[in-house]
Amino acid sequence: MAAFDTTEHSHRRYNPLTGEWILVSPHRSKRPWQGQQEEPEAETRPAYDPTCYLCPGNTRAGGIVNPSYESTFVFDNDFAALQADVPAGTVNVNGLLRAEAESGVARVICFSPRHDLTLPEMEPAAIRRVVDVWVEQYQELGARADINYVQIFENKGFMMGCSNPHPHGQIWAQRTVPADPAKETVQQAAYFQEHGRSLLLDYVELELKEQTRVVYQNEHFVTLVPFWAVWPFETLLLPRRHVTSIEQLTDAERDSFAAALRDLTIRYDNLFQISFPYSAGLHQRPTDGQAHESWHLHMHFFPPLLRSASVRKFMVGYEMLANPQRDITPEWAAERLRSLTTVHYKQTAQ
Amino acid sequence: MAAFDTTEHSHRRYNPLTGEWILVSPHRSKRPWQGQQEEPEAETRPAYDPTCYLCPGNTRAGGIVNPSYESTFVFDNDFAALQADVPAGTVNVNGLLRAEAESGVARVICFSPRHDLTLPEMEPAAIRRVVDVWVEQYQELGARADINYVQIFENKGFMMGCSNPHPHGQIWAQRTVPADPAKETVQQAAYFQEHGRSLLLDYVELELKEQTRVVYQNEHFVTLVPFWAVWPFETLLLPRRHVTSIEQLTDAERDSFAAALRDLTIRYDNLFQISFPYSAGLHQRPTDGQAHESWHLHMHFFPPLLRSASVRKFMVGYEMLANPQRDITPEWAAERLRSLTTVHYKQTAQ
Ligand SMILES: O=P(O)(O)O[C@H]1O[C@H](CO)[C@@H](O)[C@H](O)[C@H]1O
Ligand SMILES: O=P(O)(O)O[C@H]1O[C@H](CO)[C@@H](O)[C@H](O)[C@H]1O
Repeated sequence: MAAFDTTEHSHRRYNPLTGEWILVSPHRSKRPWQGQQEEPEAETRPAYDPTCYLCPGNTRAGGIVNPSYESTFVFDNDFAALQADVPAGTVNVNGLLRAEAESGVARVICFSPRHDLTLPEMEPAAIRRVVDVWVEQYQELGARADINYVQIFENKGFMMGCSNPHPHGQIWAQRTVPADPAKETVQQAAYFQEHGRSLLLDYVELELKEQTRVVYQNEHFVTLVPFWAVWPFETLLLPRRHVTSIEQLTDAERDSFAAALRDLTIRYDNLFQISFPYSAGLHQRPTDGQAHESWHLHMHFFPPLLRSASVRKFMVGYEMLANPQRDITPEWAAERLRSLTTVHYKQTAQ
Repeated sequence: MAAFDTTEHSHRRYNPLTGEWILVSPHRSKRPWQGQQEEPEAETRPAYDPTCYLCPGNTRAGGIVNPSYESTFVFDNDFAALQADVPAGTVNVNGLLRAEAESGVARVICFSPRHDLTLPEMEPAAIRRVVDVWVEQYQELGARADINYVQIFENKGFMMGCSNPHPHGQIWAQRTVPADPAKETVQQAAYFQEHGRSLLLDYVELELKEQTRVVYQNEHFVTLVPFWAVWPFETLLLPRRHVTSIEQLTDAERDSFAAALRDLTIRYDNLFQISFPYSAGLHQRPTDGQAHESWHLHMHFFPPLLRSASVRKFMVGYEMLANPQRDITPEWAAERLRSLTTVHYKQTAQ
């Protein structure tokens, strides 16, 4: 029999950040697809939409009027999933029915006053401004005694449950540390304990040496398809220096972060020549007052598309009940992303 | 301030089967929805479709011809995600790039020769036949030395990545125990160790006493919305007796299981008067040769719809990066499901 080959044979890969395995089926990408076709979204939008509740000067739910903002704009979500004023309380019936009050804050961050833009179409300075807002919010919310974790994220595209195409992201910040960052805390702490170094620093240096999964690198940041990626074109964006949170980035590093964001989102749009849907977000040190020196700031991008603008990966039956699974190798996905031009397709078309 | 109230305040609930928490935002169901609308699927299909690769007598990929089957039909998936003949092998670079060969089998189970039916529209005896096939497959695959876990599941509806509306389910069986059943193994074993009883037996008895989350019960089976449900109308279907796997069910219990399946899938279809999409699957004792006496057979149903046939719950940004979250309470969902008629809406319409 031939030797084990990760480009041919079904296998499992280990995610050292979470301690979990994923199933990889590289041979399966050839199967025909007769299932759901995604509808492309309208490609042209007006710069200002009078019916959009995120555009400057428009009225939101409950009659609040947005200011005539010129770069970014942050406000408390009118339908927040987390309430700040929840009375403390718990339920516990035989250890089987257990609940406890959870308090927090949910905010919306408009990335631009322009209704028709998305991150890859924004100027570098405007993306840098978004990075600055993330720092400000992380600091402001993280400083609160009732907030121990700040989740900054973006849902882009209707396919990702985004209800408004105006460029925006969200923040959900809360009393407890949610499941995924909690797993990453445990794994990074264990690695740091054993090696005296950041898990992701060692990892990014290994990837920079191998280059197989690297999509982009600049002086301070690297974009790569992680060895353990679950989503077809999933990427990890991380600093080459060990920093535990976004507030520790220098001015030059913030610029490099913005440049990496711009590069990646342009590649994504160019992949299938559409405004590429994804959910993305920052993972960083919980704000519970501990040093968490093992934590290494990073950003995950989880895009659902698999083969084209209309065929996505479904994380359904087997994946919901048993284990995450992917059909193409991370190495192949990295190669595809790396080979794309970094001029946005809409620019080229002009 | 008012007392903590799980019908009003944001809170976390604990899932004793996995050891994880979920975020519940009961007040959030009022938010307006301007995002993606799901397209209803065609409601009428022919009893036989000459272009369907699952219909009796038709030709599948690679020229294989289906038999003229009259009840159920099982075959090896033509595009299997798991290969049986994978050479053993591992990759390990500094503990950071880790992979290992994974072998297994993927099969398709046609539930009926009729292209136009789904489980809730099938006769009780035909659903019972599906239960029998699950038992046979679990036994046959579980007996193999190279298979240590058998995942039986169904993806129903295009929304759940199902690529063919012909009623069918799948089996992915493999060498290692996947992530979710592995978590449930740990949690059930710990509970059994501490209490000398099955976690789910104690749980189902508690729910039968409270009745708040019970949707349906018969002599041997119960359907309920678990206290820790993630998906809006998620349910758990389980035997009232402690059995570790489906093969231990008596003849009468298999009938009761089929009756519970029929009841639940009819309620689901009646909820929004459409063929209700879901992913569902059995969880039971791994077939690794150990007794696993703490395991309690159960079936999970994960349906995506939230408010109507066209508005689903998206598990995206916050949920992918931080923690599962739901907007309506499990108690409210159970009440909705309980109050529905158990005559299928298509029958009533006739
Ligand atoms: O095997 P199918 O029906 O082609 O595929 C479907 O179910 C699989 C198992 O849950 C998933 O991996 C696929 O993403 C989904 O489209
Ligand atoms: O807050 P939004 O944009 O209304 O809602 C979207 O993002 C949330 C956070 O990931 C999800 O809980 C919702 O399911 C999704 O539709």
